[in-house]
This record gives sequence, C-alpha cells and structure tokens, in this order.
Amino acid sequence: MTPITTANLLESLNWRYATKKFDSSKTISPEIWAALEDSLVLSPSSYGLQPWKFLIITNPETKEKLKPLSWNQSQVTDCSHYVVFTIKKNLTAAHIDHFIDRTAVVRSMPAESMKGYRDIMVSDVVNGPRSLTVNEWATRQTYIALGNFMTSAALVGVDTCPMEGLEPANYDRVLGLPDKGYATVVACAAGYRAEDDKYATLAKVRFLNSEVVEHI
Amino acid sequence: MTPITTANLLESLNWRYATKKFDSSKTISPEIWAALEDSLVLSPSSYGLQPWKFLIITNPETKEKLKPLSWNQSQVTDCSHYVVFTIKKNLTAAHIDHFIDRTAVVRSMPAESMKGYRDIMVSDVVNGPRSLTVNEWATRQTYIALGNFMTSAALVGVDTCPMEGLEPANYDRVLGLPDKGYATVVACAAGYRAEDDKYATLAKVRFLNSEVVEHI
Repeated sequence: MTPITTANLLESLNWRYATKKFDSSKTISPEIWAALEDSLVLSPSSYGLQPWKFLIITNPETKEKLKPLSWNQSQVTDCSHYVVFTIKKNLTAAHIDHFIDRTAVVRSMPAESMKGYRDIMVSDVVNGPRSLTVNEWATRQTYIALGNFMTSAALVGVDTCPMEGLEPANYDRVLGLPDKGYATVVACAAGYRAEDDKYATLAKVRFLNSEVVEHI
Repeated sequence: MTPITTANLLESLNWRYATKKFDSSKTISPEIWAALEDSLVLSPSSYGLQPWKFLIITNPETKEKLKPLSWNQSQVTDCSHYVVFTIKKNLTAAHIDHFIDRTAVVRSMPAESMKGYRDIMVSDVVNGPRSLTVNEWATRQTYIALGNFMTSAALVGVDTCPMEGLEPANYDRVLGLPDKGYATVVACAAGYRAEDDKYATLAKVRFLNSEVVEHI
C-alpha cells in the first residue's frame, strides 16, 4: 500500500466544505462513482455487521420529491448522486447469521466454527442491553460511513454536503422503506461545486486545536 | 487541490482493517500525528458546531488504567496514540455563541451579523425538539469524526482499531471528565500493526454491493 503524503491529506480535508450550491450540469463519472460506492461498502462498522443500506438517488423525479422534505435545499436536486443513509431496523439473529454465512464464504471457513462469535454478537446486539437501543447503535455506525464517505469523496475531488435537515419518516414513505425494514437517518449530496458557490471560498471555522484536543 | 486516484483510495480502504495486535515498539512520528490531529479537528459536523473533544492518550499509566475498562483489549496499551472521542454534554447557548465568536474571528465579520443564524441554531439544538436528544446528536457527530479519522489514518499508512467495547462512565472517571462537562462515547487506537497480527491477512467481509446499495 502506498500512503499519500500528509500534505495531500490535509489539502483535501481543507478543500472539502459543505457544498451549498452544486453545478447541476456536472455528473460524477461512472469510474469515480464506482469507487465511492465501494468506499461506502468498505466502511467500518461495529463487529463488521454493516447494519445499513445506501440508497443512491439519481432519478430526477425522486430527487424532486425529496427536496421539499429537505427544507427545500437545492443540493438534493442539483447534486450528481444523492446518497440516503438508512439503517436496517431492529436487527435480528437472522442478520447475524447472514453475516456469519457471508464470512464463511469470503474466508472459506465453516460457519459452525464461528458459533461462539455468533452467539456473542447475538447476545450483545439482539438480546443484550444494546438491543434496547439497537437502532441508535445502527445509526451511529451509519455516521461512520458518512464520515468515511465525505473524506473519500474529497480525496478524489468530489464535493459533498451532509444533510441532516430532512424529514426521515417522509423520506421513508417516498422511498418505500417501511415495508422493507429500513429507515432513513441522514443523507449526503455528492457532485461538483458551482463556480459561484460563495461558501467555497469562506475560511473554514474550527475551534483551536487547544480547545478540542487534549494530550494525556 | 490534487485528487488522488480511485485506485489509491481503494487500495488504502482495503488495506485498512480493525487492527487487533499493534507493534508496541512503533510510534507514529510527530509529523504524521500532527496531520492526523488536524484531520480530527477538520472533521465535519452538523452546523459546524464541533460538539466534542478528542483526548489523545500516550501516557502508559493512563493506558494501563483504561485497558481493564476496555475488555482488556491489548490495543489500548500497545497502540501508539489512543484517541478517546468525547462529546460536550448538554450543549448550551454559550457554546453556540462561542462558535459564532470564533466564526467572527476566522471570517473577519461582526458576530452581530450572524444573529439570525445563531438564533436558528439555538432554537434547534438548545431549545428545540433536538435538545431532548442533544447528547445523542453530539454522539452521531463524533462518529463522523471517527469515520473520517480511520480513513485519514489509512491513507497516510497508519493502522487503527475502533473501540466501542469500553465502559464509558469509568473512562469518564479515570479521565476526569464529569467535572468538565464531557463524556466518553467511543475510542480508536492508532499505530502500526504487529507483523504477526493474523487478522491483517484475513479477507475483508462485506455484504455484496447488491445487498447494501440500491440505485434509484
């Protein structure tokens, strides 16, 4: 693996900003989108359980339906790819078993050999104290994917805007999620900034390192 | 800004794994750590409010105290830099005002000109419906930082292991957080994988793209 330089990393992170105005004439190329989709799939999650589904909205009519459910923000319709991050609700033992089966395939090992690990996950996530807040736990995992996605996009020169200002229940309805057991938690617009997005040139506002970092 | 190639991005994301065994003889260089610390500070958050503090633990005694509070996982003590992600609890209008003041300094504009924006944030985060779950909201933001941090680290060749298996209240006690108004939510070990960490060479387990991605 060839690491990038720290200068390159920081250049990308400083280049990133919450894009307010996308250039609706520009779309992310299939090759770059495929990589960003893979970056979503490769996101880390607790136990590797991936309690999520990523909906990639490019259909203009669907975007138009979601816009009024998103404080009418233009990013929804003007971006190239609009990603809706959803959780798989109320995880069951079946999800854990599916994960174990997938592990067995990928790693060429018998599922039975992972019975102990499977039981630990079931007793924690499905039957343990975490089960009371399992949807919030899944939501947190999804925010890891969101963080990973925005950074990955910036590194390959794609602009993003995270969108918390949306109506989750209405998103679910438009996207037909309730019947499928998924629920919207957050979204992220991806594409390319408009040349006249004035937010692009504003200085980034961060508290001083001494305020938000402490060395112990 | 010079984007990296999609191949370089995916190589890094595939290289990353939840490191189980760190090489305790290797430390992250000051130059690389400074960049990773900046990547934490540069993490996106809702409204840019940065409701967090990142505690960077390198002191061996503190690491030893945290290890038994982390299911005795060796990553706590063997890693180079152990990052504890904390939220600033029960955000008040004073935090919003501090953010506005910081914006005024960074962008050379009068704080008064942002009064409307300030009031929107206060009515949403401090007084609105979100205030009932403000600590969970802050926790979600912190998971964005976690996702960004793991990806940033991988890109510059630093290994990480996210740590949810910890006792938050006991972490808070050891780290003296309750009096300061912060609370532990998650941690992440950073450093370099041991040559014999058998997890490093296991195939990465992900559901099929067709299972976790849907195009609309």
